[in-house]
Amino acid sequence: MIAPFDALNIGRPSALSRAEARERCDALAKPTGALGRLEDLAIWLAGCQGSCPPRQVAHVRAVVFAGDHGVSRFGVSAYPREVTAAMVHAFLSGGAGVAVLARQHGAQLRVLDIGVDSELSELSDETRSKVRRFKIRRSSGAIHLEDALTPAETHAAIAAGIAVAEEEIALGADLLIGGDMGIGNTTPAAALIAAGLGVPASEVTGRGTGIDDPALAHKTALVEAALVRAGIRVRDPIDALTALGSADLAAGVGFLLGAARAGVPVLLDGIVSVAAALVADQLSPGVVAWCAAGHRSTEPAQSLALDKLGLEPLLDLGLRLGEGSGAMAAVPLVQSASLLLGEMALLSDLAP
Amino acid sequence: MIAPFDALNIGRPSALSRAEARERCDALAKPTGALGRLEDLAIWLAGCQGSCPPRQVAHVRAVVFAGDHGVSRFGVSAYPREVTAAMVHAFLSGGAGVAVLARQHGAQLRVLDIGVDSELSELSDETRSKVRRFKIRRSSGAIHLEDALTPAETHAAIAAGIAVAEEEIALGADLLIGGDMGIGNTTPAAALIAAGLGVPASEVTGRGTGIDDPALAHKTALVEAALVRAGIRVRDPIDALTALGSADLAAGVGFLLGAARAGVPVLLDGIVSVAAALVADQLSPGVVAWCAAGHRSTEPAQSLALDKLGLEPLLDLGLRLGEGSGAMAAVPLVQSASLLLGEMALLSDLAP
Repeated sequence: MIAPFDALNIGRPSALSRAEARERCDALAKPTGALGRLEDLAIWLAGCQGSCPPRQVAHVRAVVFAGDHGVSRFGVSAYPREVTAAMVHAFLSGGAGVAVLARQHGAQLRVLDIGVDSELSELSDETRSKVRRFKIRRSSGAIHLEDALTPAETHAAIAAGIAVAEEEIALGADLLIGGDMGIGNTTPAAALIAAGLGVPASEVTGRGTGIDDPALAHKTALVEAALVRAGIRVRDPIDALTALGSADLAAGVGFLLGAARAGVPVLLDGIVSVAAALVADQLSPGVVAWCAAGHRSTEPAQSLALDKLGLEPLLDLGLRLGEGSGAMAAVPLVQSASLLLGEMALLSDLAP
Repeated sequence: MIAPFDALNIGRPSALSRAEARERCDALAKPTGALGRLEDLAIWLAGCQGSCPPRQVAHVRAVVFAGDHGVSRFGVSAYPREVTAAMVHAFLSGGAGVAVLARQHGAQLRVLDIGVDSELSELSDETRSKVRRFKIRRSSGAIHLEDALTPAETHAAIAAGIAVAEEEIALGADLLIGGDMGIGNTTPAAALIAAGLGVPASEVTGRGTGIDDPALAHKTALVEAALVRAGIRVRDPIDALTALGSADLAAGVGFLLGAARAGVPVLLDGIVSVAAALVADQLSPGVVAWCAAGHRSTEPAQSLALDKLGLEPLLDLGLRLGEGSGAMAAVPLVQSASLLLGEMALLSDLAP
């Protein structure tokens, strides 16, 4: 029995709280509009929370969905697939980039092996069991040759992502971040964005971890082959995930569906996160209203998908690390927006 | 006796620490260059501190230089000049935008009346005496009609700014921010940038707090008149400050000179802060090496001056509040850069 994810009941942020926040922005002790996009961000938060001024964003929780990709055996990345499993260790030991940023910002960070091509046998039994609790399979398929997943795996991965979001929300999350780790993962993400937007491989394929021109041409051809192979299945978001995605990407989609269904705001990261948002919003229109964009990555497909979703990123610093790091770097701006709307004096408070 | 500010001994950031930081960036557990401009920022910090990895940026101190401007009686702002004094109270009570952000980031904030057109007599004697300790005069001159300052006032204001920077550094600052408050202050700042870059008033004049088209045309004509009145004095940075600046702007210049002489890094803010940096670097070449740009303001002159100084801002969020708020909003990114370089695992640490 396959769950009808397209029937999820996604609500809308509160129009009343948004209107109140807009009014309050104009009443603060500053020229109208002088806080620029921090005002938009504060209004978005107020809408998501249904509260003006918005509450402090104190409990940020990030989940990194790790997985390998069949395409990583076909020269699409500057790094070997073994790096994925090695990086799971780096998340656990706190040495990964996003782990450093999470500590800085007092955010919780969790890494989950959704589709890593390793048994992670070096981990303690307890840690291993936690990290692998939602594991779908070892690696996803090489999308230019075969489907990434079976339909049942796609559904299981989406359901896993929803369950993870629910757990994080039960633990008190007032802002969620979905991160990614997986050598080769910009390839399925680019393919999904091409599928979602109806644009050719040449417009979505980027350099990922830093490949050279010949490797980029090869990667582009591989994305194109995957799109041709998927055929008309690209029109359906679930079928597209099955054909072109991966277990970790499908879990990322579920994570966004779970957050939006519960009305908890999400800060999107780079190409993998934004590809998941594009699919989630196609599956259940309205998901994007619960999302803000943390940063603009160097991957062209990420910008195309953000445009389609109507999101403008907070940071544009040339980051391309993945992991949720660009979103995590932007967390203080979300907190600033909330604090400014809540704590600034009003024009009417100023001494005459 | 007038101090020869152009003879200040401004050192250079450590090339050795910069090189070490660049090497360490490439050794971190991430693709080469994947942290984008946060890597440049970490390298800059390491150079300023002469230490790789850089120390944590834990003691951020910001000073708001407040002052009025003769031009504010001539229709260049959407707000009356009385707002300047009222906002001094808002800084002290913690309700100003930059005060909210400073609390968020654990930064110290100090407001100084350098040229406010008020006696601030509502303040307690103790607070009043602290806030006015470096006061130069009540308001600066209307620059389209008269010099902003006497030459002696210009020198006194620069010396005050240097002394303030020295005090902040003695209190432990490892990152300084100079903020501004003053109705009308984008007018002298734009004029100084026009003078420094040799561009016409039409290229530097912006909407400030949000003036309409007729007021913008009027403000542009006023900047043009000021430049014509100043004549060849625009070529000398001290003369330009005297003719076109203000007491608070000159203090801001001194603040940057003091920071650079002591080798303490500075995060620049909007048009007023960047105008001060342009003048300071003309006066003592090398000041800019100690500066990073916090944000891109909506004022066209700020972007022109940043280009000239070779600085690319960290944030571009359409902020135009002044007060040092754009720099303060960017503080976590500077701290992130330092922490990432110091705390991320190395590629060589990853499990094989």
